[in-house]
Amino acid sequence: MKQAVSKRGTITSIASIAGVSIPTVSRVLHNHPDVAPETRKRVELVIEESGFIRNRVKQGLRRKSSGIVDMLIPDLNNPYSIEIVRGVEEVLSRTNLRLALSVTQDTLQLEQRWLTKILNSEATDGAILVLLHGQQQCFDTLSKHKIPFVAIDQRGDLGLDVPSVGTTNWFGGRLATEHLISLGHRRIAIITGPPSIRCSQDRLAGYRATLDDACIPVDPALIRSGAFVQETGYDQACALLELPEPPTAIFTGNDMQAMGVYSAFRARGLRIPHDMSVIGFDDVPIASILSPSLTTVRQPLMEMGRVGTTMLLRLIAGEPLDSTRVELTTTLCVRASCMRYHSGTQIC
Amino acid sequence: MKQAVSKRGTITSIASIAGVSIPTVSRVLHNHPDVAPETRKRVELVIEESGFIRNRVKQGLRRKSSGIVDMLIPDLNNPYSIEIVRGVEEVLSRTNLRLALSVTQDTLQLEQRWLTKILNSEATDGAILVLLHGQQQCFDTLSKHKIPFVAIDQRGDLGLDVPSVGTTNWFGGRLATEHLISLGHRRIAIITGPPSIRCSQDRLAGYRATLDDACIPVDPALIRSGAFVQETGYDQACALLELPEPPTAIFTGNDMQAMGVYSAFRARGLRIPHDMSVIGFDDVPIASILSPSLTTVRQPLMEMGRVGTTMLLRLIAGEPLDSTRVELTTTLCVRASCMRYHSGTQIC
Repeated sequence: MKQAVSKRGTITSIASIAGVSIPTVSRVLHNHPDVAPETRKRVELVIEESGFIRNRVKQGLRRKSSGIVDMLIPDLNNPYSIEIVRGVEEVLSRTNLRLALSVTQDTLQLEQRWLTKILNSEATDGAILVLLHGQQQCFDTLSKHKIPFVAIDQRGDLGLDVPSVGTTNWFGGRLATEHLISLGHRRIAIITGPPSIRCSQDRLAGYRATLDDACIPVDPALIRSGAFVQETGYDQACALLELPEPPTAIFTGNDMQAMGVYSAFRARGLRIPHDMSVIGFDDVPIASILSPSLTTVRQPLMEMGRVGTTMLLRLIAGEPLDSTRVELTTTLCVRASCMRYHSGTQIC
Repeated sequence: MKQAVSKRGTITSIASIAGVSIPTVSRVLHNHPDVAPETRKRVELVIEESGFIRNRVKQGLRRKSSGIVDMLIPDLNNPYSIEIVRGVEEVLSRTNLRLALSVTQDTLQLEQRWLTKILNSEATDGAILVLLHGQQQCFDTLSKHKIPFVAIDQRGDLGLDVPSVGTTNWFGGRLATEHLISLGHRRIAIITGPPSIRCSQDRLAGYRATLDDACIPVDPALIRSGAFVQETGYDQACALLELPEPPTAIFTGNDMQAMGVYSAFRARGLRIPHDMSVIGFDDVPIASILSPSLTTVRQPLMEMGRVGTTMLLRLIAGEPLDSTRVELTTTLCVRASCMRYHSGTQIC
């Protein structure tokens, strides 16, 4: 509360000295495009020269704006990344900032190369990061160079001071498992993402907790894992089908894995959902196009991109965040890939 | 030839004065990352100060590098755009340039906004443009400000002096139609993209020419058009089915339209390819995932992005292009959505 008062006081003083309205100062701080160049210059000069600006605001304006916000994503051949990019782009399109996109292929090497590029040129206002693990080193480097950043769907553990947007993975694991139990399934398999990744662990924990609550024993043979790619879904579906007692439903780590499960069943002449119920995770656009359309746990990827970018714009403007860590909720999208299971056969 | 000799002479002189090898000068001109900062600075200084550098090279180095290549695309929710972006990103990832991505939503307003952004900040080395029509005004503005650019899959008519990469649309129209005729089809419908767009016209011309060659009369009722979206495919498939004599095969303007055709058939309990053969255009990743997998005319979108970016890097370095207009070939990807048609019924 004290901070807010002090900030308000500062903006009022700047407005008064520069001879502009308070909303105009706010627009300059937020990099909005609708400020005349001369006005913007005058306001920035007052901010720079005045002694009474708060440190945070000062820090935000320390560099001349490069007009660029950087975004690091794992790849471009995955609808998961694209959905987050769409949210980021949408928010940035309303500012005078452009979006510079770099791909890491989930390798430290390309991440490092990007860091070198932006530190050499000093040409970024801030960064949106979709990284593999909690790359503390990357965060430390950015902090050291006073480059604001927000991590989105961070797949590793994060320090509490790292601004980030995520989704409720544990709850998503519960949603999927509860849905299958409500349809009468008891032998429910799970294919997770890489076990070292936080979101895989959280979803698996949600799955376990829900089975425990329903007094269904957890069978380790039904717990599988692998990369977030179709091949994992294909291979693990084949392995699950070869068990002495196969599952009647599979909850996959993401929609790409679910597509792999679909292929494995099609290759064997088996039908979804008649021979196996399948639930995905993400709700990428393909999910509703698949045949049968995929029941999946939706994580609001576009919204995560939007919220993360809004947070970054505040950091760039030197404003405090309401909360460093934001988690958006997962929801269940019921479509056509799950069916009621009843005493030995699945029925509609 | 004279140009090449003169250029060679220039580079040799620069190398000699700067005390570096000829390949090093070339690397500086191409913005390759593997040049030590001091060396790069020394070479650039010699280039700037020496009087004997050719105009084109000088022009390329007129501005200090911003480290940014801009790319304008219609949208991010279409795999078509994403594939081109992937090609661009792949080539840029090997340079010290970053990719700034802007979305036009196919509107002149957002295109104009982007122009204003980059002209105000003078912060681009060059631009890759995927635009709706031949926006001569946009090209003129960029030329006037000496910003190199390449148009990719330009959907309007282009002046011969506009550097561009396209695909052989007319030939693609032939490929699809020939394939259907070879399977015994005679009543072949076509759904094109917007009729005002060059690629729609070219593909339709390829379709007409092939029917003419096979002495199959062109039935105007079988020629439809609309936006490159699923809804068009859905609506036009419904309209075609309601004809007194429906077609036995549909050639769509792109894979998204084909997906709409799939939905229309699924909604009516009809089966592809048994009740209708379908061919798409583009070969986006979804095409092979659909059920049945989609036979489609592949335009090499990623390669178009790659080739366009390589051309742009040459322009940025002030080098002449081998050819201003490059067309990459379309090919037919045969999958499971077409079937042999024989006397009134489609047979496998």
